[in-house]
Amino acid sequence: MSEARNIEAGRPGNSAAREEGIVRYRQVRSRSIELAAPLSPEDQVIQSMADASPTKWHLAHTTWFFETFLLRDHLAAYRLFDDDFPYLFNSYYEAEGPRHERPARGLLSRPSLEQVHAYREHVDAAMERIIDSLTESSDGPALRRLLVLGLNHEQQHQELLLMDIKHALSRNPLRPAYSPVPKIEPSSTSPAMKMLRIAGGLVEVGYEGDGFSFDNETPRHKAWLEDYRLASRPVSNAEFLEFIDDGGYREPRWWLSDGWQTVQQEHWQAPLYWYRDDGRWLQHTLLGPRAVDPNEPVTHVSYYEADAFAAWAGKRLPTEVEWERAAMERGTDGAFADSGRFHPKPARGEGLCQMMGDVWEWTASAYAPYPGFRAAEGAVGEYNGKFMVNQQVLRGGCCVTAAGHARPSYRNFFYPHQRWMFSGIRLAEDA
Amino acid sequence: MSEARNIEAGRPGNSAAREEGIVRYRQVRSRSIELAAPLSPEDQVIQSMADASPTKWHLAHTTWFFETFLLRDHLAAYRLFDDDFPYLFNSYYEAEGPRHERPARGLLSRPSLEQVHAYREHVDAAMERIIDSLTESSDGPALRRLLVLGLNHEQQHQELLLMDIKHALSRNPLRPAYSPVPKIEPSSTSPAMKMLRIAGGLVEVGYEGDGFSFDNETPRHKAWLEDYRLASRPVSNAEFLEFIDDGGYREPRWWLSDGWQTVQQEHWQAPLYWYRDDGRWLQHTLLGPRAVDPNEPVTHVSYYEADAFAAWAGKRLPTEVEWERAAMERGTDGAFADSGRFHPKPARGEGLCQMMGDVWEWTASAYAPYPGFRAAEGAVGEYNGKFMVNQQVLRGGCCVTAAGHARPSYRNFFYPHQRWMFSGIRLAEDA
Amino acid sequence: MSEARNIEAGRPGNSAAREEGIVRYRQVRSRSIELAAPLSPEDQVIQSMADASPTKWHLAHTTWFFETFLLRDHLAAYRLFDDDFPYLFNSYYEAEGPRHERPARGLLSRPSLEQVHAYREHVDAAMERIIDSLTESSDGPALRRLLVLGLNHEQQHQELLLMDIKHALSRNPLRPAYSPVPKIEPSSTSPAMKMLRIAGGLVEVGYEGDGFSFDNETPRHKAWLEDYRLASRPVSNAEFLEFIDDGGYREPRWWLSDGWQTVQQEHWQAPLYWYRDDGRWLQHTLLGPRAVDPNEPVTHVSYYEADAFAAWAGKRLPTEVEWERAAMERGTDGAFADSGRFHPKPARGEGLCQMMGDVWEWTASAYAPYPGFRAAEGAVGEYNGKFMVNQQVLRGGCCVTAAGHARPSYRNFFYPHQRWMFSGIRLAEDA
Amino acid sequence: MSEARNIEAGRPGNSAAREEGIVRYRQVRSRSIELAAPLSPEDQVIQSMADASPTKWHLAHTTWFFETFLLRDHLAAYRLFDDDFPYLFNSYYEAEGPRHERPARGLLSRPSLEQVHAYREHVDAAMERIIDSLTESSDGPALRRLLVLGLNHEQQHQELLLMDIKHALSRNPLRPAYSPVPKIEPSSTSPAMKMLRIAGGLVEVGYEGDGFSFDNETPRHKAWLEDYRLASRPVSNAEFLEFIDDGGYREPRWWLSDGWQTVQQEHWQAPLYWYRDDGRWLQHTLLGPRAVDPNEPVTHVSYYEADAFAAWAGKRLPTEVEWERAAMERGTDGAFADSGRFHPKPARGEGLCQMMGDVWEWTASAYAPYPGFRAAEGAVGEYNGKFMVNQQVLRGGCCVTAAGHARPSYRNFFYPHQRWMFSGIRLAEDA
Repeated sequence: MSEARNIEAGRPGNSAAREEGIVRYRQVRSRSIELAAPLSPEDQVIQSMADASPTKWHLAHTTWFFETFLLRDHLAAYRLFDDDFPYLFNSYYEAEGPRHERPARGLLSRPSLEQVHAYREHVDAAMERIIDSLTESSDGPALRRLLVLGLNHEQQHQELLLMDIKHALSRNPLRPAYSPVPKIEPSSTSPAMKMLRIAGGLVEVGYEGDGFSFDNETPRHKAWLEDYRLASRPVSNAEFLEFIDDGGYREPRWWLSDGWQTVQQEHWQAPLYWYRDDGRWLQHTLLGPRAVDPNEPVTHVSYYEADAFAAWAGKRLPTEVEWERAAMERGTDGAFADSGRFHPKPARGEGLCQMMGDVWEWTASAYAPYPGFRAAEGAVGEYNGKFMVNQQVLRGGCCVTAAGHARPSYRNFFYPHQRWMFSGIRLAEDA
Repeated sequence: MSEARNIEAGRPGNSAAREEGIVRYRQVRSRSIELAAPLSPEDQVIQSMADASPTKWHLAHTTWFFETFLLRDHLAAYRLFDDDFPYLFNSYYEAEGPRHERPARGLLSRPSLEQVHAYREHVDAAMERIIDSLTESSDGPALRRLLVLGLNHEQQHQELLLMDIKHALSRNPLRPAYSPVPKIEPSSTSPAMKMLRIAGGLVEVGYEGDGFSFDNETPRHKAWLEDYRLASRPVSNAEFLEFIDDGGYREPRWWLSDGWQTVQQEHWQAPLYWYRDDGRWLQHTLLGPRAVDPNEPVTHVSYYEADAFAAWAGKRLPTEVEWERAAMERGTDGAFADSGRFHPKPARGEGLCQMMGDVWEWTASAYAPYPGFRAAEGAVGEYNGKFMVNQQVLRGGCCVTAAGHARPSYRNFFYPHQRWMFSGIRLAEDA
Repeated sequence: MSEARNIEAGRPGNSAAREEGIVRYRQVRSRSIELAAPLSPEDQVIQSMADASPTKWHLAHTTWFFETFLLRDHLAAYRLFDDDFPYLFNSYYEAEGPRHERPARGLLSRPSLEQVHAYREHVDAAMERIIDSLTESSDGPALRRLLVLGLNHEQQHQELLLMDIKHALSRNPLRPAYSPVPKIEPSSTSPAMKMLRIAGGLVEVGYEGDGFSFDNETPRHKAWLEDYRLASRPVSNAEFLEFIDDGGYREPRWWLSDGWQTVQQEHWQAPLYWYRDDGRWLQHTLLGPRAVDPNEPVTHVSYYEADAFAAWAGKRLPTEVEWERAAMERGTDGAFADSGRFHPKPARGEGLCQMMGDVWEWTASAYAPYPGFRAAEGAVGEYNGKFMVNQQVLRGGCCVTAAGHARPSYRNFFYPHQRWMFSGIRLAEDA
Repeated sequence: MSEARNIEAGRPGNSAAREEGIVRYRQVRSRSIELAAPLSPEDQVIQSMADASPTKWHLAHTTWFFETFLLRDHLAAYRLFDDDFPYLFNSYYEAEGPRHERPARGLLSRPSLEQVHAYREHVDAAMERIIDSLTESSDGPALRRLLVLGLNHEQQHQELLLMDIKHALSRNPLRPAYSPVPKIEPSSTSPAMKMLRIAGGLVEVGYEGDGFSFDNETPRHKAWLEDYRLASRPVSNAEFLEFIDDGGYREPRWWLSDGWQTVQQEHWQAPLYWYRDDGRWLQHTLLGPRAVDPNEPVTHVSYYEADAFAAWAGKRLPTEVEWERAAMERGTDGAFADSGRFHPKPARGEGLCQMMGDVWEWTASAYAPYPGFRAAEGAVGEYNGKFMVNQQVLRGGCCVTAAGHARPSYRNFFYPHQRWMFSGIRLAEDA
């Protein structure tokens, strides 16, 4: 985020700015290649559900974003790397024309991974030329905004890449790991959960500043808040196991009606990736199968499970306004993807812990436009606005989010039944 | 509503109160029978989709509500009319045990309509005994609350009965009418739509008073509102036809992503019940097929269509807070079910017209608990709270809502794709 | 059958023939009304699955058949009873134009049962006029064939009416009976099953004679048959219970691959309509719930179950040629619908018992055209021929087949997964 | 086939037999590797529908067959290459225990292609040891039968591999070719179709001899046949285009009822892989997109299309007995997979052409056991018998069948709606 600000708003001398812009671009782009590195070409082609995409597709789509919104429209004499690629690698931008059907992305054995790498290099070379010219160009500020949007877009896909490959590998009976197991520190007991009182009033939320934010975080606006309490840390596996052991998945009274229907249809009995082996709970992780650690935050729960757990616990989920106010004032951070662990850590420390990082936290707020919201003009206006129904907001980033990508005003959103993101639970209650 | 208050809160002398209670009970109960009267036993058994229920089932289920929550639990020596009925006629109360599968309600040729009428009479006789005893009983106030809840519940089912039979009859190629066509006044030109400015600030919304309200309308609470504008009347058929003629159903940019997917999957090209015949638009109504009247409010649109229309018109939908503030201050009423027309009327008059009645108005607000919301204890706590996800709030009542049933704080809710209720559109915009 | 011959081929004097034709017509037509008589209008409107039709629809469709293929085309100045009825009551005759969607037949509360009765009377009156004129008319023989086809068609629908209402009532948790329970004779022990040797050779099968047959029974043709053995009676419930108790429904090796998949998807554990209550097997019947009688033939089994049972028993199902040869030579009859029992009887007697009646018997033969088969010209050519793929032949009629309707050459056909007809099992083996 | 006989039945001196056995084994096994060679590891992992399997899976499954039925059970001290592989690579043998879900085969990025190659080598080495010992072993004849079955099984999967990759590549918008385009000879006009008269009588069909056959081809048995006529060659694309141009896909009267339903649901308008481009018909082939050649046999048609075409042409499809008699007496051969063309050739020559090779020919016969059929004991008994319902027999082999694999008595079988095999149409009629 601070890096983003360097490009967008910092105003060092022109040549230094150019240099910084290119460095930042290279950092983000090479990070995608690094994340794909442990995977074979075979791993990178598979798609395990319509919601997920193959690794190779992520590498190509993020490249298409730069090619389409910057190079094609703004770099004189730029030639598309391949005329078929816009059809293959447009995700959901209706204004950009027809595109390949989402559930069939996993059939794209061609173009080969090698060709996708060549595509990235082709676009990267052209992007460096355009970045080089930004400070002189009259539409420099607009292009810089698109450039920064493209980099943040690529970081979002880095997270999706990890979520998606986790899901794909979990469907393999061999339960392969994404990466060799790092040294996992012995789990320490997590501190007791406290409900911390936070004062309400007429507050302001939403992004404001000279750095980057997505359009859905704006405009900053007023909201009324009663006093409330927020849990000092996310719900742990140990606490969620109590819910399971108390028959939580069999008792309709804790559940929203749609949630109860989902539990029955899907035969849910535990978070996604959990399974029983010889009487104990294991979970599939990016590091391969591991015992469920009681001290780690519970993750891969749906909104329905988060809400049911809160009901069972006699609490509720926070609204996004409650969450954001607390995070802006005093939250501390957990771990992001740069830790290389790709799995949430047990809580540690005092006060309002792990607000950012480790697990995304479901809020009670439906994803909706802020008062006064306007989507961007043109195709990039489809980035966020058209999804503003049927989804719930999550806040805070997680252990597979790129470091520096998230911020307190950042609004993530998923459907209530989805669980393949690293979603967790932070409880709230009226003061 | 005012009637409800008589029972609940008005405190005339005991015998007068008794009398009034019984009168009110009889009024509501006999209204259900009146509404079913134009239908044959054959009509009353059919079910055209899982969301809808047969007329006969509504007559029985509303009776079950009184039997279960009042008679069984509170009337000494009460014997169930039939031991199988709780299984057949419980709708969705998990706490009341297992129940018949919803999509199979249309297979219940037995019990016969005659038996259901006998069930109603059995329960009514017992109810009159219990109402009679309310003023003396120590749990009188609690029972009175359940009684009023039961009457409001029955009124909701009167509306559902009309919505559901409209849908069922629309599936019949003969396009039969529910009732003989009344004299339809010639349509007058509707007044031009004006966007009326309304002042914001720190407002209060939610029910407060000594009458009846559902739990989801409470507690009354503060909210911050910027100044805004609200349309003087609902969108008319003429205006919606412009959207259709402008290719609105074929242009993705007006639509939420989920909406666009629905349009394509369902091949929507117009509101529900509209069809083309010899080049002109007709619509199925409770009075049989009729030409689409340009001056009537458009109805039977989904949230997706309402939102797309607003985007096309360069406006937006109001939030429920915006809607409620305006309705409390200066809205005028349209028509309800007592008009016997069962179809929305063209707008007439000045100012903020038809806020109540004629068509339910989609709001931009997801259905969620108010700050501090608590569901009632026990099975009736399932009445509203467990549906608070994935649905959008509609406000204002409609032409098939029982007169006196709705109020400005009343929150109706449906899924964004649903259209068989009498839903319409009122536009809003930032001031 | 013999009755049919009277009309078709018998040649008494003209006025006697007329008289007989009308008597026969009235018998068949009034039988349909008799079969519907125990059912209320509400019962007659419901449809419990796409494969089944409402009673009222059967009453109307059989009438449509006469109206369309005889009256409309051959009775001068005949006027359709109602111009909408052909659309509503055409079943599957593509050549007769578009028609109402099959799974929505249960939504036809209108036309009312009363109107359908009026339709029948209108058509019956006109039919009597046409029958009256048959002997003089030059196209008399062709019309006589259509008349007899229409009567046999109506008899088939009488059987479907009983099958379908059994299914519909079985979906009602009250488990209502179609008709008051008759005096059920105490069950006698069924005779031991014997495998009777039957000589093969170059045989002839298929209908030949001057009575009525469906086109699919012809032409009579040669077939080679090895010697074989056929069971003296259908498999009994007691024998089928052994299969169940031996884990037959859990052991893939007895099952065809498609059958095993169906067992798992549908969670089959017993024949259709069987259910356990307090540790014993009951079954839903047209007479209401009854204990499974060990001596009755097992019924409501799919082809998959019949084949799996035969594999488990070390036997096989007979081909239709094997079945027909045996039936023509020496089978004895069981009970048909005129018994009023509507449920198969235990076997009794010696030799090859119950070949005709009681339960339809699955054969190993796929339903296919006989060598030299030609469908009739025009719309009635769709009667049988277009179904000759994916289905298996059943033989022999059952306890809800009209008496005199079936014959040894009669070919019934259903999909291998279907079970709502009164299907049973007769074993065979190589000699 | 002749090769198979060498192993199975030919009895040269022991060491020569050993040598021949090993040569034959190596030929078949290396052919699979050759067929996969044009494909990248990425190509080999994808699966485009539940009916198809990834190339890599075919390479592993055929290996599993030898490992399971020969090595594991009969080679002393043999150790499984990998304990997880039986779970992953068992196809449908219930007796061999649980297995990976078929539609998820395309998610198996691990084991890698490299590991699958190592698996093949491991098993091949052990197989050579077992083949070496066959002549001395007391269970030599039984093992030789399993060996030959395994080789024929692998040849079947070679055909499936080509069918499946054709389907997978066809789903890629880039329409990639499986192999570089060979020199395609200019198309010659195909000879006119003649209906050749063939004499009936009491014939014998089914395999008899000392070579290899599948169990479903036996026992040889008598059947009665009337005189008939069979087309001199398969239906050509030109002829099928006439059907299309005559509105064949829009006219219900040509279609079986299930076929018509499929046409409407699937929106079929032409054979699989055909598509229109600029007003002309192209087709996806293993050699990439090509114009539809009027002289080539039509291929990739379902049974429904074959039957509808025959009805439109005033003919019918032959039964399998009719087909086999003709093929045994005087058919000539077309091309097989060794041609390297992987696409059917235009008919050439006189008489009964292309009975074997080029396209599989749908017959009017449902796939059923021959009189006296017995499946093999044990798990290999599941090879054919359990599929004997709901499918139709095809005869003759095709352009992707291994040369020498098919024979006149060979029975292939597919569901009537399937089209991804190289299926074609040969007409017949009564004499």
